[in-house]
Amino acid sequence: MGKLKVGLIGGGGGGNFFGHVHKRAIAFDNSRELVAGALRSNPDEAMAAAQDYDVEGFTDYGALLEACQSGKLDLDYVTIVTPNHAHYAPAKAFLEAGIPVLCEKPITMTIAEAEDLQAIVEAKKVPFILAHTYTGHPMMMFAKELVRQGKIGDVRKVEAWYNQGWLATALEKEGLQQAEWRTDPAKTGISNCGGDIGTHAFVAATWVSGRSVSRVSARLNRFVEGRQLDDDFNVIAELDNGGTALITATQIAIGYKNDNGFRIYGSGGSLEWHQERAESLLVRTGEVDETYWIGANYSFLPNSVGSYLRVPSGHHEDFFAALANLHCTMERTILRSRGQEAPEPFDHPGVAEGVAGMRFVQAAVDSSAAQGAWTDL
Amino acid sequence: MGKLKVGLIGGGGGGNFFGHVHKRAIAFDNSRELVAGALRSNPDEAMAAAQDYDVEGFTDYGALLEACQSGKLDLDYVTIVTPNHAHYAPAKAFLEAGIPVLCEKPITMTIAEAEDLQAIVEAKKVPFILAHTYTGHPMMMFAKELVRQGKIGDVRKVEAWYNQGWLATALEKEGLQQAEWRTDPAKTGISNCGGDIGTHAFVAATWVSGRSVSRVSARLNRFVEGRQLDDDFNVIAELDNGGTALITATQIAIGYKNDNGFRIYGSGGSLEWHQERAESLLVRTGEVDETYWIGANYSFLPNSVGSYLRVPSGHHEDFFAALANLHCTMERTILRSRGQEAPEPFDHPGVAEGVAGMRFVQAAVDSSAAQGAWTDL
Amino acid sequence: MGKLKVGLIGGGGGGNFFGHVHKRAIAFDNSRELVAGALRSNPDEAMAAAQDYDVEGFTDYGALLEACQSGKLDLDYVTIVTPNHAHYAPAKAFLEAGIPVLCEKPITMTIAEAEDLQAIVEAKKVPFILAHTYTGHPMMMFAKELVRQGKIGDVRKVEAWYNQGWLATALEKEGLQQAEWRTDPAKTGISNCGGDIGTHAFVAATWVSGRSVSRVSARLNRFVEGRQLDDDFNVIAELDNGGTALITATQIAIGYKNDNGFRIYGSGGSLEWHQERAESLLVRTGEVDETYWIGANYSFLPNSVGSYLRVPSGHHEDFFAALANLHCTMERTILRSRGQEAPEPFDHPGVAEGVAGMRFVQAAVDSSAAQGAWTDL
Amino acid sequence: MGKLKVGLIGGGGGGNFFGHVHKRAIAFDNSRELVAGALRSNPDEAMAAAQDYDVEGFTDYGALLEACQSGKLDLDYVTIVTPNHAHYAPAKAFLEAGIPVLCEKPITMTIAEAEDLQAIVEAKKVPFILAHTYTGHPMMMFAKELVRQGKIGDVRKVEAWYNQGWLATALEKEGLQQAEWRTDPAKTGISNCGGDIGTHAFVAATWVSGRSVSRVSARLNRFVEGRQLDDDFNVIAELDNGGTALITATQIAIGYKNDNGFRIYGSGGSLEWHQERAESLLVRTGEVDETYWIGANYSFLPNSVGSYLRVPSGHHEDFFAALANLHCTMERTILRSRGQEAPEPFDHPGVAEGVAGMRFVQAAVDSSAAQGAWTDL
Repeated sequence: MGKLKVGLIGGGGGGNFFGHVHKRAIAFDNSRELVAGALRSNPDEAMAAAQDYDVEGFTDYGALLEACQSGKLDLDYVTIVTPNHAHYAPAKAFLEAGIPVLCEKPITMTIAEAEDLQAIVEAKKVPFILAHTYTGHPMMMFAKELVRQGKIGDVRKVEAWYNQGWLATALEKEGLQQAEWRTDPAKTGISNCGGDIGTHAFVAATWVSGRSVSRVSARLNRFVEGRQLDDDFNVIAELDNGGTALITATQIAIGYKNDNGFRIYGSGGSLEWHQERAESLLVRTGEVDETYWIGANYSFLPNSVGSYLRVPSGHHEDFFAALANLHCTMERTILRSRGQEAPEPFDHPGVAEGVAGMRFVQAAVDSSAAQGAWTDL
Repeated sequence: MGKLKVGLIGGGGGGNFFGHVHKRAIAFDNSRELVAGALRSNPDEAMAAAQDYDVEGFTDYGALLEACQSGKLDLDYVTIVTPNHAHYAPAKAFLEAGIPVLCEKPITMTIAEAEDLQAIVEAKKVPFILAHTYTGHPMMMFAKELVRQGKIGDVRKVEAWYNQGWLATALEKEGLQQAEWRTDPAKTGISNCGGDIGTHAFVAATWVSGRSVSRVSARLNRFVEGRQLDDDFNVIAELDNGGTALITATQIAIGYKNDNGFRIYGSGGSLEWHQERAESLLVRTGEVDETYWIGANYSFLPNSVGSYLRVPSGHHEDFFAALANLHCTMERTILRSRGQEAPEPFDHPGVAEGVAGMRFVQAAVDSSAAQGAWTDL
Repeated sequence: MGKLKVGLIGGGGGGNFFGHVHKRAIAFDNSRELVAGALRSNPDEAMAAAQDYDVEGFTDYGALLEACQSGKLDLDYVTIVTPNHAHYAPAKAFLEAGIPVLCEKPITMTIAEAEDLQAIVEAKKVPFILAHTYTGHPMMMFAKELVRQGKIGDVRKVEAWYNQGWLATALEKEGLQQAEWRTDPAKTGISNCGGDIGTHAFVAATWVSGRSVSRVSARLNRFVEGRQLDDDFNVIAELDNGGTALITATQIAIGYKNDNGFRIYGSGGSLEWHQERAESLLVRTGEVDETYWIGANYSFLPNSVGSYLRVPSGHHEDFFAALANLHCTMERTILRSRGQEAPEPFDHPGVAEGVAGMRFVQAAVDSSAAQGAWTDL
Repeated sequence: MGKLKVGLIGGGGGGNFFGHVHKRAIAFDNSRELVAGALRSNPDEAMAAAQDYDVEGFTDYGALLEACQSGKLDLDYVTIVTPNHAHYAPAKAFLEAGIPVLCEKPITMTIAEAEDLQAIVEAKKVPFILAHTYTGHPMMMFAKELVRQGKIGDVRKVEAWYNQGWLATALEKEGLQQAEWRTDPAKTGISNCGGDIGTHAFVAATWVSGRSVSRVSARLNRFVEGRQLDDDFNVIAELDNGGTALITATQIAIGYKNDNGFRIYGSGGSLEWHQERAESLLVRTGEVDETYWIGANYSFLPNSVGSYLRVPSGHHEDFFAALANLHCTMERTILRSRGQEAPEPFDHPGVAEGVAGMRFVQAAVDSSAAQGAWTDL
């Protein structure tokens, strides 16, 4: 039985390390392989990048799609890792062609675009996964399961955060590509910090807790002089059940790397998770603090989580594996849609979470502009 | 040379463990002693409590003050540990009599009362210390010094928090005295969670950072049914230099004990401190994370901090010592005011911080009532 | 009801910080007070030190004892904090006079001396406590209780360690008193590192586990040139039940402060404790790691431990409180011996543990000299 | 440019998860691929396993070698993951044929076998890597570099450990294949715990510190009834420079997973590393504790380490990446041996470390049998 064949859109730029991470994640389980790519916006560079990636090259996503549609190329799904402004067009094109899409976050530049993708996904029933990498960490999945099982009772309050320090100075003026496009409204949209990392905190707050955000009160800051977009993002959110979520992110916390995590306080207990020590989950329901570690052998893990694990306890799979888990969910979804055998895929974030994320960022930007006025999503 | 003589007001109630903590803190250094007390509101119980405390008993603070003024009793200062509503009257009376006061937080029930105390303190030049115990932790003092020295540059953002879980259920209906008065507006004032522990986070955010709060946008919650006051407290604050502070507290975080702490992000580095591991401070100014531990022998500690330490590195002085350090500051202040030799006292929170804390809580309550509208302090 | 009156022998030297720690610990609970002392070996200095300590001074322990026996002074017990070589004589004298003794470790310089004290204690039934401070940490006491309750089954293996770095260079040649006497055979005995801190590890290994050491194989090192005694101490021990203990200590681990702790592996689970984070205990009996924190309010603590705690969970009592707990055990023991009411005292280390510790150090020194030959205690 | 082609020997057994880990590690960087295998000892099962692995199958390693020698198959190197007793024969055969070998540890069953391989490797100059996976963790590599650079001065003492709990009960009697062969002398050799995980601690102690072990004093235990081989392993070792190493391992530490790590105490500082939090290294050279984290972007990493990293700081590569790093070293070595461009390979453990490890285990077994007598390697 062959491997699933995957195409990659974007990821060929020198500074875009994330294309290479996806490539690893695709190949991670030996059941998927990257075979083709439209890797840069410039056609010549795209073809050169394909050589570097060792895949069949295409000048742009249109050419890639045409090859699929003409039968010259057989892709099971595509992965989109372009800058934010270049997610929508290829996603739409491939979804309309019925080809599943695993797309980097944020889903699009505008709510309208996101809703448009949602309409297509729902109409065509084509698989779509939004690549919030951290949701692939087994202990984040386990947290979601624990909430779902009622382990901590009703969700009252959520804290979700993402603190970085790399943009504490104006790196975008020193030629760093990763900094340039993120701080450029034309490429990144209405929010830098909120869109780039605040959305991770948003997903942690909502996807894990099983709650949605109804409205927000926000304060966005630009601490580094000359920035057009926020480099600091603070939101107090109201949840659909009346609970409260603090969703915060910053890029000016010097010395912090990817300090992403969440706490969920319920009527019966609490959960706490940190991306930088992703392989454990803290659970507090009484007098004794409990720490759960990953491990394929652990009986406390439901099969929905345990089936994603690759090694026994005491060894940490971590970042690449987390992203691979999202591709694994795509793989399971595709196989099952074809009637082939595969374990149940986890309900990782998809187009609905993408739309919600866009609305969240828009509402936060609007609220901040309106002096923190509560703004509906 | 004799010990300083201290009187205690309040602290005799069965559930009031904090009176006993102060008693230990007073005696901690063998240079101060608790000699007298008006320990409960009921005169008979007050006298009985005095026996239990093994000090000279008085029926109420008025009698205690009278004894001082009539020369029957010689007190160097008094400590006030009554419930919130009973701070103002004795504080005012003793300050007006020129007797120094170390008072539990929050300083009073209203801003007007706090300002009244401030006027007296300033007019009479009588020492007043507000007992934010945690500010007595040497590593919190060291953090303040590092900011003052410019170690982390300009303060951009502060996160300060205090999470507890003990009021996640309605303990006040089960006869727990500590829960009863804290959730009763008549005894605790306009805010439970904000006043009781949010003020600790406020002090961390401002006293350590050296910045003041200009205005706030807040959301207060009452998660446990039947409560009149907040058990959850969330504030986004604007600092006087344009920075932002997140000041949050909750009493419904099941399994969390006294999870108080702060992070300060500056233009040149960051600081992080946690009350539950009070004896170390995390400093990040570059690629390598630094951890500083307490220790009387450490040369990195300025004398302003090191002079408070009692044992070499590797042994933790912790909670009682932290409170003792505030009494130590009072002792140094009094001795120096008399021209006696004593090391420089640290600038622990006093009446100004008390007034600011009252304004902060009031503004937070008002802002929350006004749908998070930005409210000046 | 009056406080217990305590005398102090030793502790007056400038560098002897531990006398002051005992003074704090004695006064900690307001039920004991330091009233007299023979604080230095030089009579004049002893009297001067007494002024500094603010207690009645005596030129030497003989004079102190005489005052007791002549009825001029009423002491409930004495505390001995002299250098190692000066433990035996005063301990013997006071015990023979029927006055309880709380003595710093190691108990004496030789096994014979220790056995002599044991004979007196047993004959006279006079209370004797060996001041292994760390055994006063409630979580170390709780660990002992858990083993006793069978929580981890039969003890198979113990690891106990004590790592310091302060003697990584020859401080004894730079005039540091604490370093001088510890590295001087005449004052410290046959072992420096083993006697000073290895005995703490030994007590952790045996007192907590409830097992004794039958024989040892050891390697002692002198890493710093010119030292006559060990500054590094490594023992593999056989327990009375056939189990194994690793008991190690070093003074040359640069940057380590008082890294003391233990792990106990039983047939049903494991315990782990670290002095530098003394307020928690790690318990592993299955798939989930459990962390227990101190707190007067915790129902998991048996009264034998909980009755020693002074504050609710979330505040750390730590080092001074740990030593105070040993004095508290002395107090309870004395009161009960007089038929007065007091909670059950914990079975903190006494003369038997002192004798065992002396035998342990002797056997380790002998084994190391005999190329690690297994040597009976 | 094509990928390096790799053959796998062993790894096809149902319980042998490590074959699959190697497969991932081989494919990790898209520059190597697993193309052929002799995956089980039973020929039919070997062919079936090859289908499962999706590689060309061979009935045994002889057939695989023959295919290489006859030119039917082009392999750049082979990886051996058979049980211990089946390392030597294929390693010898392939090395003699001049084909590089990456072999699981322990290298062989006997010292003689190991020395035989060493002779071949040295005579033929054929690359050989011993798969001590943890040495592929960048922070373990960085530790080795720091010692080499003199950061902590002369090595005085090393502690290296590996604690597991999975064999605390007789799983080998319950049909668990991983437990069966490890506790069977015929398949695992003279030591279970020492050979399986004690060797990891040995490598940490010697490879990182740059020191060799001269002689040992050991105590091996069999705690679980009915075992023929050790499940607990304790060694005090003398280093070639006169220093001391504690090298310990156990399989009966309930609740511990892969608690492997080391501390190195030098005359100028100390290093500490833990496999279960592999992505950081603790460095202590003075008053402040320093923590270094991995990150491709960190300037403190020499290129010898940094060139192995795949993502910027804040994301953890961890276990699979560590093993991939060993394959990466093999890849670099092979490419350079052909005159092709490749970064400098790190000096990961090879045949010399394999021989030393065999001698170490033999000496420990002998010493334990001789009552801990010091035994030369």
